[in-house]
Amino acid sequence: MKHTISVLVENHAGVLSRISGLFTRRGFNIDSLAVGVTDDPDISRITIIVTCDEHMTEQVEKQLNKLIEVLKVKTIPDEELIARELMIVKLSADAAARRDILTVAEVMEAKILDITPTTLTLQLADVPQQLERFVQLVEPYGILEIARTGTIALQKGSDTLSFRGKV
Amino acid sequence: MKHTISVLVENHAGVLSRISGLFTRRGFNIDSLAVGVTDDPDISRITIIVTCDEHMTEQVEKQLNKLIEVLKVKTIPDEELIARELMIVKLSADAAARRDILTVAEVMEAKILDITPTTLTLQLADVPQQLERFVQLVEPYGILEIARTGTIALQKGSDTLSFRGKV
Repeated sequence: MKHTISVLVENHAGVLSRISGLFTRRGFNIDSLAVGVTDDPDISRITIIVTCDEHMTEQVEKQLNKLIEVLKVKTIPDEELIARELMIVKLSADAAARRDILTVAEVMEAKILDITPTTLTLQLADVPQQLERFVQLVEPYGILEIARTGTIALQKGSDTLSFRGKV
Repeated sequence: MKHTISVLVENHAGVLSRISGLFTRRGFNIDSLAVGVTDDPDISRITIIVTCDEHMTEQVEKQLNKLIEVLKVKTIPDEELIARELMIVKLSADAAARRDILTVAEVMEAKILDITPTTLTLQLADVPQQLERFVQLVEPYGILEIARTGTIALQKGSDTLSFRGKV
């Protein structure tokens, strides 16, 4: 089963290497990892999605909490999850294919970022499953390149994982 | 100066730890790192933004190419850069603040993801500078939580960094 773990860390050099190393050494399979700054430039939030059973997430949380750069760890319950991912995809597209791709883009709320006589580059931000659907839809036109961010997540409602303990 | 390096890697356990460790050991300052799968499930693309001078990026490229999981490395020229980042932000918002925040969201093309009597959660996907502007605009209402993905990038035009050498 997939679990989404949100980790607030001090923004030190090496913290990402230590955290990803911790997962590797214990043989945990990381499905997705995303790291970004928060509104405090000294603190980053790392969102990790792992496939493992319930009791293993407890173990992961414990191990993460042992690292001195780690400020807070929380596994976000599935039913409370707001998860989104961003993708940029460059497609092979002549004039004929262009119109079809634009229709798909409109329905999926993807944005056009760049156009050349032979290519179209689009952006889509949505739940990861919707990104998969988009990839399947545009695959027949020829995918030249894809860049994806990995999934970020917050908890629904007014609860927070802020380091300053705001609610 | 900031440089954007795009790296295609084999999707092995430990590759992220090795790459981030390489930067740490050499004292390179990573501004942003994003990792996501490509259309080939065995290959991931890592986008790294580092602050360093030109000749240091050559050194970084060389070091990366030495890792066996690394398939391709390219520094994307600034003038060719399509860079985007995704953010989810939870704001403190009563009924009065809500209307003001919705106006900002409309102008900046942010999406509402969740609403409670005291909070609003929004998503914005744009160039990193626009994310900064958005944070500044909504800061007065009270930022409860932010999750950001780090920046992903592709090169403008029809050139690609595909492992299969498609153009």
